[in-house]
Amino acid sequence: MLSKKASCDSHGQDSSYFLGWEEYEKNPYDQVKNPTGIIQMGLAENQLSLDLVESWLASNPDAAGLKTNGESIFRDLALFQDYHGLPDFKKVLVEMMDKMRGNKVKLDADNLVLTAGATSANETLMFCLADPGEAILLPTPYYPGYRFDRDLKWRTGAEIVPIQCTSSNGFKITAAALEEAYERAQKLNLKVKGVLFTNPSNPLGTTMTVAELDHIIDFVAKNHIHIISDEVYAGTVFDTTSFVSIIEALMQRKLENTEMWNRVHIVYSLSKDFGLPGFRIGMIYSNNPAVVSAATKMSSFGLISSQTQYLLSQMLSDNKFATKYVTENKERLMKRKEMLVSELKNFGFACLESNAGLFCWVDMRHLLRANTFESEKELWEKVVCVVGLNISPGASCHCIEPGWFRMCFANMSEETLRVAMHRIKIGHRATMVKPVKFSPKWVRLGLSTRSLIIIFRSLVLFLIVSKCHFV
Amino acid sequence: MLSKKASCDSHGQDSSYFLGWEEYEKNPYDQVKNPTGIIQMGLAENQLSLDLVESWLASNPDAAGLKTNGESIFRDLALFQDYHGLPDFKKVLVEMMDKMRGNKVKLDADNLVLTAGATSANETLMFCLADPGEAILLPTPYYPGYRFDRDLKWRTGAEIVPIQCTSSNGFKITAAALEEAYERAQKLNLKVKGVLFTNPSNPLGTTMTVAELDHIIDFVAKNHIHIISDEVYAGTVFDTTSFVSIIEALMQRKLENTEMWNRVHIVYSLSKDFGLPGFRIGMIYSNNPAVVSAATKMSSFGLISSQTQYLLSQMLSDNKFATKYVTENKERLMKRKEMLVSELKNFGFACLESNAGLFCWVDMRHLLRANTFESEKELWEKVVCVVGLNISPGASCHCIEPGWFRMCFANMSEETLRVAMHRIKIGHRATMVKPVKFSPKWVRLGLSTRSLIIIFRSLVLFLIVSKCHFV
Repeated sequence: MLSKKASCDSHGQDSSYFLGWEEYEKNPYDQVKNPTGIIQMGLAENQLSLDLVESWLASNPDAAGLKTNGESIFRDLALFQDYHGLPDFKKVLVEMMDKMRGNKVKLDADNLVLTAGATSANETLMFCLADPGEAILLPTPYYPGYRFDRDLKWRTGAEIVPIQCTSSNGFKITAAALEEAYERAQKLNLKVKGVLFTNPSNPLGTTMTVAELDHIIDFVAKNHIHIISDEVYAGTVFDTTSFVSIIEALMQRKLENTEMWNRVHIVYSLSKDFGLPGFRIGMIYSNNPAVVSAATKMSSFGLISSQTQYLLSQMLSDNKFATKYVTENKERLMKRKEMLVSELKNFGFACLESNAGLFCWVDMRHLLRANTFESEKELWEKVVCVVGLNISPGASCHCIEPGWFRMCFANMSEETLRVAMHRIKIGHRATMVKPVKFSPKWVRLGLSTRSLIIIFRSLVLFLIVSKCHFV
Repeated sequence: MLSKKASCDSHGQDSSYFLGWEEYEKNPYDQVKNPTGIIQMGLAENQLSLDLVESWLASNPDAAGLKTNGESIFRDLALFQDYHGLPDFKKVLVEMMDKMRGNKVKLDADNLVLTAGATSANETLMFCLADPGEAILLPTPYYPGYRFDRDLKWRTGAEIVPIQCTSSNGFKITAAALEEAYERAQKLNLKVKGVLFTNPSNPLGTTMTVAELDHIIDFVAKNHIHIISDEVYAGTVFDTTSFVSIIEALMQRKLENTEMWNRVHIVYSLSKDFGLPGFRIGMIYSNNPAVVSAATKMSSFGLISSQTQYLLSQMLSDNKFATKYVTENKERLMKRKEMLVSELKNFGFACLESNAGLFCWVDMRHLLRANTFESEKELWEKVVCVVGLNISPGASCHCIEPGWFRMCFANMSEETLRVAMHRIKIGHRATMVKPVKFSPKWVRLGLSTRSLIIIFRSLVLFLIVSKCHFV
């Protein structure tokens, strides 16, 4: 007697990604209380600069205290229910978005729709752009855990057709890959309504090149479809100049006054750049007045608490703080990423070259027993349960090549990351006996790998106590 | 190139209710700055007890200040993104819900799903219970402005079939009305999935009788469908003993261990009882584990800010405050309602006898030129534009009898309500020349009414300056 949506199990809670989470939740690492527990490296959370926000809050008690100049504004906030959002908040948000795009764009607060997090923003855009059974194209690998599928498809009835990208060109989007995805959609009788991508990419940690954006623009212009650019990691780009927002790419090609301009929509949030997922600040920026109007009405299903809108509008309108935060946050993220990449390199792991994000995209193909997703899963289970690190396997990110993993580095202390690296070192040495070179031949040594795994397990199980159920 | 949802105009922004709002927004009353402006009586907002919350906040600065015992918990709140919500918050919420039901029920925090307002809660339940093209039955009159239609139908694709209630029995739900609605749905080829009602009723301001609840229970049991009881006004019942929640009604009939128990769901929020619509605190309480599970996942599209969850959990866990607030708030609401009802009575207007809510359901049938919705609209335009009160016409509440209006009384100061009453007095006298008795004959005096309206307009336009475009 329930709806199909509530009855069916297509919303991915049972994917590998969630299984890893369950293991982590049963046995979470804690330096003092549970030093042999699993370290969470599957969570793209930014804890690196929260101290800056904390100290701003300490110096500005009125902002959290629902006051302006010492006077309570509680009553106004409690009763505020205009789904257009607090005008001051929207103003500072677009100003900050401009800043993060090197002030090369000038966004308009009237085009902004506030939503309770980017999850809601993405779903709202799907509701606005696609009818049930229509599709959007999405480059792989993308946002792990099948949750993105759920966000986009579950309630909207829309479909996702992957644009298949590979390591051969660093997972870049090509014109051919776009065409191939479009043809695949047509064979499935799916009307394509748009291309959605994350820029900077989750899980790659890379910004899109102008060439990639141009491929998409050409493709979208030809097919009269929409662009949804999820730019929730815009503030994590270590080198701001290398980030080109879709709006900027269109402006570079002087497409402001074309019909296409109205088919471009951006998703943003403060969850990643400012480490505030709990506060649920998401938004849609759309060039299309009809989308802005419909999405604003839809935003009544997920409005942001006025208390939180007020606090953040106060914080972000402090220019000195905002500038310091954005700069310092990037520096800290870069430092942290470099630490992870160089450690991994020492152990023979290569990462995709990246310039953004809260994660690295790590190449472990040389550790696979065979070039299959089954082997990737086997390796992943060992990493989770024996090595004690919950990382995200490429399969959970819809990667079409087995052997890639996403490792998050900003949701823990430097000390914890060192413990994680130490575990990789031990696990790696135990597995490899001698340092491994990136030799595809190694992958084919199926039998000898198996015997090594037995030695590896015996050795490591003495070193790391684990309550995990996989082994 | 947009979706049908974004393209179509079926979401009611252009209904009478919104037109009245637009007029109000162009020319809002302010005692000092705009004493001839329109007074907003169309907004079911509770401002009567916000001073109690304000003084609690002043005595408990840690709650808003993101602190516990003087220590910052900002970091935990900023990063909190468990869609199950803060356990402490859910605990105090169910305890308060129990209290509002005279502790005759014992709700379980595990059955509670938090949503960003009741708007989201109602839509989420529709997504869980009905597939596109399936219907729920809804007694009339209901929540004004067609917004409820939009909330329930727009994105879910579900349909609403009204259960037609009339003034003949005080708009009570009867077994016959339920059957008639069900048959109507069947004729429309709509599969009925449930009955949704607001208890206490918006716009009637009445609690449902046990007899009414019993009719619904029998009907729902017979047809194996769901009950959604929207109880967002539970805390406004002047006399708590007269409020029977659907859960209590089921318990009275010892239906706890039947299959039917799992088909009962409650919607609640803090927007009305606590006057906090800006904070977006809504919730679903469901006896059905599958609905709790699906709705919890769906809640990721509209989570409540952790900052707000924390503040409210601190406030509501202060038992002394919570008890005082609930008692005092009801007393203030009752006093205010009695003031409105007695003033209206003096002018010859009867209200439906009520015991809850932030509004009265006023009988103005004797002022209609004819017994039609056209006449109701004419009268309403005069009330908005000449008398200067934005009230809600029955048509916007889907009432099937012309001539009833909802008047909200808790969104303004007592002084403003007195001005509103004075305007009714003047407008009323100007229209009626002599006091009018409730005579249906009067309604039929079409021609003489028209001439009276001309006199009325000339007289009142001297008294009240209005920029309204209707006249």
